[in-house]
Amino acid sequence: MKKHDYSLRILPYIPFFYVIWSDDLLSASETNVVRKAIENDDTLTKEDVKLLSGWLQRDNPPADSELKGWKHLVHNSEVKLIESDTYPLSSLSQRMASYYQSDDTFNEQLKQIEINLGIQPNHYNHLFDVEVEHETTSDHYNAKELDLILKGKHAALIDRFRTDLDDPLFTWDIHRNKEAFREIVLKQVRFLAERGYGALAYPEAYGGTADMEGYAYMFENMMYVDGSLTIKFGVQFGLFGGSIQKLGTEKHHDTYLKETGEANLLGCFAMTETGHGSNVRGVKTTATYDAESDQIIIHTPGANDNKEYIGNALHSKMASVFAQLIVDGKNQGVHAILVPLRNEQHELMPGVKIEDNGYKLGLNGVDNGKIWFNQVAVPRANLLNKYGDIRDDGSYHSAIKNPNKRFFTMLGTLVGGRICVARAGLGGAKMALAVAIKHALKRRQFNDSIKIQEDLLMDYPTHQLRLTPLVANAYVYHVTLDKMMEDYCDESQPDKRVIETQVAGLKSIITWYANDTIQECREACGGKGYLIENRIADLKGDVDIFTTFEGDNTVLLLLAAKGVLSDFKAEFNSAGFSAVLKLLGSQLSDKLATINPLYANKVDSEHLYNQKFHKHAFDYRTRRLTYTLAMRIRSYIKKGMPSYQAFMKVQTHLIALGKAYAAELAYTTYCDYVEAMPDGKNKTLFEKLGALHALYEIRKDAEWFLEQGYIGGTKSKAIRQRVERLCTELRPHLGVLVDGWGIPDHCLSAPIAN
Amino acid sequence: MKKHDYSLRILPYIPFFYVIWSDDLLSASETNVVRKAIENDDTLTKEDVKLLSGWLQRDNPPADSELKGWKHLVHNSEVKLIESDTYPLSSLSQRMASYYQSDDTFNEQLKQIEINLGIQPNHYNHLFDVEVEHETTSDHYNAKELDLILKGKHAALIDRFRTDLDDPLFTWDIHRNKEAFREIVLKQVRFLAERGYGALAYPEAYGGTADMEGYAYMFENMMYVDGSLTIKFGVQFGLFGGSIQKLGTEKHHDTYLKETGEANLLGCFAMTETGHGSNVRGVKTTATYDAESDQIIIHTPGANDNKEYIGNALHSKMASVFAQLIVDGKNQGVHAILVPLRNEQHELMPGVKIEDNGYKLGLNGVDNGKIWFNQVAVPRANLLNKYGDIRDDGSYHSAIKNPNKRFFTMLGTLVGGRICVARAGLGGAKMALAVAIKHALKRRQFNDSIKIQEDLLMDYPTHQLRLTPLVANAYVYHVTLDKMMEDYCDESQPDKRVIETQVAGLKSIITWYANDTIQECREACGGKGYLIENRIADLKGDVDIFTTFEGDNTVLLLLAAKGVLSDFKAEFNSAGFSAVLKLLGSQLSDKLATINPLYANKVDSEHLYNQKFHKHAFDYRTRRLTYTLAMRIRSYIKKGMPSYQAFMKVQTHLIALGKAYAAELAYTTYCDYVEAMPDGKNKTLFEKLGALHALYEIRKDAEWFLEQGYIGGTKSKAIRQRVERLCTELRPHLGVLVDGWGIPDHCLSAPIAN
Repeated sequence: MKKHDYSLRILPYIPFFYVIWSDDLLSASETNVVRKAIENDDTLTKEDVKLLSGWLQRDNPPADSELKGWKHLVHNSEVKLIESDTYPLSSLSQRMASYYQSDDTFNEQLKQIEINLGIQPNHYNHLFDVEVEHETTSDHYNAKELDLILKGKHAALIDRFRTDLDDPLFTWDIHRNKEAFREIVLKQVRFLAERGYGALAYPEAYGGTADMEGYAYMFENMMYVDGSLTIKFGVQFGLFGGSIQKLGTEKHHDTYLKETGEANLLGCFAMTETGHGSNVRGVKTTATYDAESDQIIIHTPGANDNKEYIGNALHSKMASVFAQLIVDGKNQGVHAILVPLRNEQHELMPGVKIEDNGYKLGLNGVDNGKIWFNQVAVPRANLLNKYGDIRDDGSYHSAIKNPNKRFFTMLGTLVGGRICVARAGLGGAKMALAVAIKHALKRRQFNDSIKIQEDLLMDYPTHQLRLTPLVANAYVYHVTLDKMMEDYCDESQPDKRVIETQVAGLKSIITWYANDTIQECREACGGKGYLIENRIADLKGDVDIFTTFEGDNTVLLLLAAKGVLSDFKAEFNSAGFSAVLKLLGSQLSDKLATINPLYANKVDSEHLYNQKFHKHAFDYRTRRLTYTLAMRIRSYIKKGMPSYQAFMKVQTHLIALGKAYAAELAYTTYCDYVEAMPDGKNKTLFEKLGALHALYEIRKDAEWFLEQGYIGGTKSKAIRQRVERLCTELRPHLGVLVDGWGIPDHCLSAPIAN
Repeated sequence: MKKHDYSLRILPYIPFFYVIWSDDLLSASETNVVRKAIENDDTLTKEDVKLLSGWLQRDNPPADSELKGWKHLVHNSEVKLIESDTYPLSSLSQRMASYYQSDDTFNEQLKQIEINLGIQPNHYNHLFDVEVEHETTSDHYNAKELDLILKGKHAALIDRFRTDLDDPLFTWDIHRNKEAFREIVLKQVRFLAERGYGALAYPEAYGGTADMEGYAYMFENMMYVDGSLTIKFGVQFGLFGGSIQKLGTEKHHDTYLKETGEANLLGCFAMTETGHGSNVRGVKTTATYDAESDQIIIHTPGANDNKEYIGNALHSKMASVFAQLIVDGKNQGVHAILVPLRNEQHELMPGVKIEDNGYKLGLNGVDNGKIWFNQVAVPRANLLNKYGDIRDDGSYHSAIKNPNKRFFTMLGTLVGGRICVARAGLGGAKMALAVAIKHALKRRQFNDSIKIQEDLLMDYPTHQLRLTPLVANAYVYHVTLDKMMEDYCDESQPDKRVIETQVAGLKSIITWYANDTIQECREACGGKGYLIENRIADLKGDVDIFTTFEGDNTVLLLLAAKGVLSDFKAEFNSAGFSAVLKLLGSQLSDKLATINPLYANKVDSEHLYNQKFHKHAFDYRTRRLTYTLAMRIRSYIKKGMPSYQAFMKVQTHLIALGKAYAAELAYTTYCDYVEAMPDGKNKTLFEKLGALHALYEIRKDAEWFLEQGYIGGTKSKAIRQRVERLCTELRPHLGVLVDGWGIPDHCLSAPIAN
C-alpha cells in the first residue's frame, strides 16, 4: 500500500480534477457536468461529496501546491496514458487508484463524466508527466463512411471516374515544356470523352445522361490529377459545348453536340477581349449581318480588341465567338456565333489569326491564345439563336425585348461554369490539405530534449490552428456547392437570378479560400512543400487564376452585393443601378433587433457552439451591412451625386456585403444539410465541423462584430479560445477527415504524403 | 449675366460647400478650417459671414435641395475641372464665379482653404458633373528625389550596380529548363563577382570594401533581375563566403576568401538536413576527429540525415558543412567544417554523393541538392575554428565554455543573411507593385455608359485600397531594414542578441508582407498578371520560399517572442525556457495605463494622423501581450506543468507577440528616420506614408484593440475611413511613389508596365 492522503473513493477523481484546474480547460457549464456526476455517485460519502465539491469553486480554486500534489500522485503511480483506450482518462484514473489501493472496482460515474465533458487525450496528455502511448490518428470515425456521405447520390459515377483515373495516362509527372504538356492533357481529355464523361451533362440524344450535378463533382476529382486537365476539360465540354447546348437550338445540337462531347470537334469559348477583361457587354468584336450574302461577318476592329486568353485556342477547330450583333445597321447587343477557326488539316481559316498566350504561372497544359478576326464570313445559321435570331427575311427577332435582359439571360445560362470553378478550387484545397496533414502526421520536429522523440508537426498548436479550420471549411463548402448545383439544375425553378447572385458570391469566397489554403499548406510543409514533386506548388500556380477567370472575384462580389440590395426582384445586370435605386426609393427600415448586452457577452460553450448563435450573427451582419449601405447610397443620390459615382463611393462596403452574404449562405446551406442527416456520430462530427467553421468565420470578421457591439471583448476572446479548443479536439481525427475526401491513392503521388 | 441666387462674394464659396456636404469628406476639425477662413475674409459682409457660417453646422446641414441647387450652379457654368491646376478647386470656383458675374478678382482666401483642407481633385472630381481634365499622375513630388533619399549613403554603389545590370546577360527571359537556366544564373553571378560585388562585404585585403550595408541593398536590386540570381549570389558570397569570413580564422581567409569573392571557388552552405529542417542543433551529420591521422571524418549516419536543399550544390567545389563535432569521444556540439565536394574536373570526391533536388515552385535557376557523406576525411585545419578549435595535441578548446552559447554565437554571426532575405522580399514586393500600379494607371475598365471613356483601374476605390497601403509599407520596411543592417554592422555594439531578436521578427513580417503583396498585385492585374512575361508570376514563385528558408517564419516569431520575454538579458537559445523562467520568477507588474474612454473614442483627424497615437497603440499592444503571456506561463508552471509544455500551450500567443513586437519596431524605426529628415514636402510625404502604414496596421489587428477596449467601435470605424481617405489622397502620387524605388527601365520588362 503506497502513501497518499485521499480516500479510496476520492482517488480516481484526482486526475479529472487535475485536468480541470491545471489548464483552464473547462468552462463553468462543463464543471457543472462534474458537479452533477459527483452528486449522482452513490459510492461517495457526504464528506467525500463536500470535499470534491469544494474543489469545484471557480472563485476559489484549489491551491497550486494541491495541484502539484495531485500531479505527483499520478506521476508516482507509474501508470501509462493509453490514448487508444475507449475512455482513456477513466482508465488511467482507475489504474492509478489500483496502484495505491489494489482495488479493481470500476467507477462507472467517471466514464459518464468523460463522455459528457468531451475532453480527449490530446487535451491533457502533456499534463501528467507520465508515459503516453500516442495514437497518431483515431479510428473513431471511418473515412469510407465520410466519403460515402460526401458523394451522396453521385457515388456510382464518382467511384467509376476515380477508377478510370488509375490509367497510366493520368500518372502525375513534371511538365516543363508547354507543347509536350498540352499534348498529354489533350490525350487525357479525349480519354475521358471516350468514356462518356465529356457529354455527361448533355441530353441522352447526344451521348450524355443530362447529369450536370455529377459533371460538377468530377471537377474536384480532376484536380487530384492536374489543374490543366480540369480547365481544358471545362473549356471543351462546359464552355464551348455548354454555349452550343444552352444558347443554340436543335439544329446546332444535332450538328455539333455529340461531336463536341466525344471531343471529335474541339472548340473554344471566345468571350474575353484584351481591352475588356471583365466588361463583357463592352466587347468590341462585331458580327455584322450581310443580307445580300445571308452571312454574318465577324471582325476585330482594333489591335487590342482581339479575343484574349482563350483556352483550347491552339487545338480548336471552332469557336463560340461573343460579338456585337449588328443587323440592318442596328446593334442588337452581344450574341454568340459559331466560327470555324481551322480546316481539317488544322490550317487557320482565311482571316483568322491566332497567337499563343505563352507561359503562365500555372495551367501550362492549357493552350490559351489570342484570336483576331479579319472580316470572317460565316453562314447565318451559325448564330446561336435561342435568345435572339435573324429571320429568313433578314430581320432580327428576340422573345426578350430588353437588350440588357437578353444579354444577362444569355450569360446566366453559363453560371454552371462558375460552380465548376469553385468546385475545382475546392478540390485543389482538399488535395493540398491532404498532403500537408499526412506530412504533419509523420514529420517530427524539435523538442525540449534531444533524448526524447521529437513531436509530430501536427501536435503543435500553431499547426493545428493553421490547418484544422481549413479542413472544416472544405466540408462546409463541399456541401454548399453540391446544393448550389442541385438548385441550378432544378428545372422547376426557371428563374436563375437568385442562383446567379448566390454563385457570384460563393465562387469568390471559395476560390479565395482555396488559394489561402494552398498557401498555408505550402508553408506548413516548409521546403518540402516547395518541391514540385509534392504537388502543392502546381496547385498553387494552377488555382491562383481561379480568382480571376469565370468572373473576377471583386467584380463578382459587387454583382452579388447589388443582387442583395435589389432583393433579387429586379433585373440583374452588371451596372445594376436602376434596379437598386428603385428599391431604395421605397421606404427602408432597420429591422435589426438591438443587441442585448447580456447576449453580447454570453460566453458559455453551449451558446458558442450553438448553430442559432452562428446563424444569428451571420444574419445580423448581412442585414446590417445591407441597411447601412442602402442608407449611404440614398444619401448620396439625394444630394445629386450621379448613381454611378455613388456606387463607386461605396465599393468597399459592397465588397463587405458580398462576402457576408456568401458566408451566410454557405453556412445556412450546410446547417440544413446536417439537420437532415440521420442521428449518430457522423452527424455529431459534421455539427462540430460546422461550429468550427462558423466560429472561425466570426473570428475573421471579429473587428466588425466588435465595432457594432454585436459581441463584446470577452465574447470575442472566448470565441478565439473555442476555435483553438475545437482544433485540439479534432486533432485525433484529422487523418480520417482528409481521407474522407476519397482522394485516390493513385492520385496522391506526393512523396511526403506517403 | 446669368441667373443665380447668391452674392458675388458668396458665389466662389459654393463649390467648397458642395464638396464639404455632398460626400461627408470633412471632419469637424476640418470644417473649422473653413469657418476661420470665412471669418478672416475681409471681402465678406457680416450678412455673408452669417449665411456661410449657417451652412457649416454639422447638426443642421444644408438641405438636399440646396445642395442640388449648388451642383446645378456649377454644372450650368460649364466650367472644367483641371486637375493639374495648382489650386484646382479655387480655380474652378473662380471661373464659375466669373461665368455668372464677369468678375476676375481672385479671392486669395479660397486658396488658403484649399491648402489647409488638404483635399485633392480625386476627392471631389466625380461630384460636380462637369468635364474633368484628368491627370494620371501628379508631378508634385519627384521620383528622382525619392530614389536619392532611399539610396542614402549607398547612392554611388547602387547607381553603378543598376547600370551594370544593363548588360544583355541580365535581360529577363522565360526559363523552363532548369539546367539551361542555372548556367545563365551562374554566368550572372560570375559577371557580378568580376566587378567586385561578390566580395563587397569582405575586408579590403580580400578584394572587398567591407560594405555589408551596400551588399544588403543590392539584394533588392537583384530581385528586379531575377530571384534565382539573388539567391545563388547570396549562397555563394553571403552564406558560403560568410561562414568562412565569420566562423573561420585568418588561415581560412587567406586561403579561400578572395577566391570565393571572385567566384573562382564555388561553395555551398550545408546546414539543413532532411530530418531536421528548423532544428539545426539537432543535425545528425557527424564530424569525428581522428587523432591518429589528424583528420576530421565527416559522415551521414542515416538515410534521412543527408544535407537537404543545399543551394549551389551542383556547381560547388566545396561545402561549409555543419555537423556534430566529436573530439575524443565527446560531442562538442555543432561546428562548421570545409569539405571539398569535387575535384578540378568537377568529379565528386570519394564518399560524397549529391542529388539534384529537382524542380521547385520557383528559383529553378538555383541548383539545390541533397548531399550525403560516407566517412569523408578532411584535414583538421578545415574546421572553421573561430569559436571552437582542435589543438595540435588533439584536445578541443573554445573560449565560450557553454555549448549552447557557443552554438548561438556561431549562428548569430549569420543573422546578416536574414536581413538580406527580407531585403530581397521587399525588392520583390516593390517590383510587383510597380508592375501592378503602372498597369492600373493605363488600363481602363467599365463605366456606366459605353459612350464615356472607361475609368482607369487605379481610380477604383477598391483598387486604391488594395494597393496603396502596400506601397506605404514598402517605404517603411525599406527604411527599417536599412537601419537594421546599420546596427548589425556597428562594431561598437558587439552583442548582437538584440539584433537577432529584431531581425527574427522583421524577417517574418516582411517576407509575409512580400508574399501577400505579390499575390494582391497578381490579382490586381487580372489574367495579365498570370502571364510569365509580366514578371509577377516568377516573383510569386520565387519569393514564396522566403517565408521558410533562413529560418521558418513561425519558428522565428517564437524566437522573437522569447527574446522579448527574456528582456534580452538572458542567454538566447532556441528553447529559451530557462532564461524566460528566470525572468518570470521575478515580480511582474502590469505597468499599463488604463485606457481613458475619451481616448478610446477620439476620432478627430489630428489625433488619428498623429505618430504619438500610433506609437502608443503599438507600444500598448506589445506590453500587454508580453504581460498576459508571462502571467499565463507562470500560472502553468506554478501548477507543475513542464516548461516545454507550458510554452506549447501559449504558442499562438507567442506568435502574436512576435508579430506585434516586429510591427512596433518597424514603425518606430521609420518615425526616427523621418524625424531626422529636413523639413519640406518630402518629409510631409514620408509622414503621410507612415500614417497610412500605421493606421493600416492597427486596422489589421483592430479586433485585438477592440477586445482590449483600447479603441472603441467609433474609433475603429474612423480609422477605417482614414485609411480609405489616405489612399485617395495618395492616388495622384502613386506613379511617382513607385518610380521613387528606382527600378531601372532595363529591368522593368513587363509589357503591361510599359
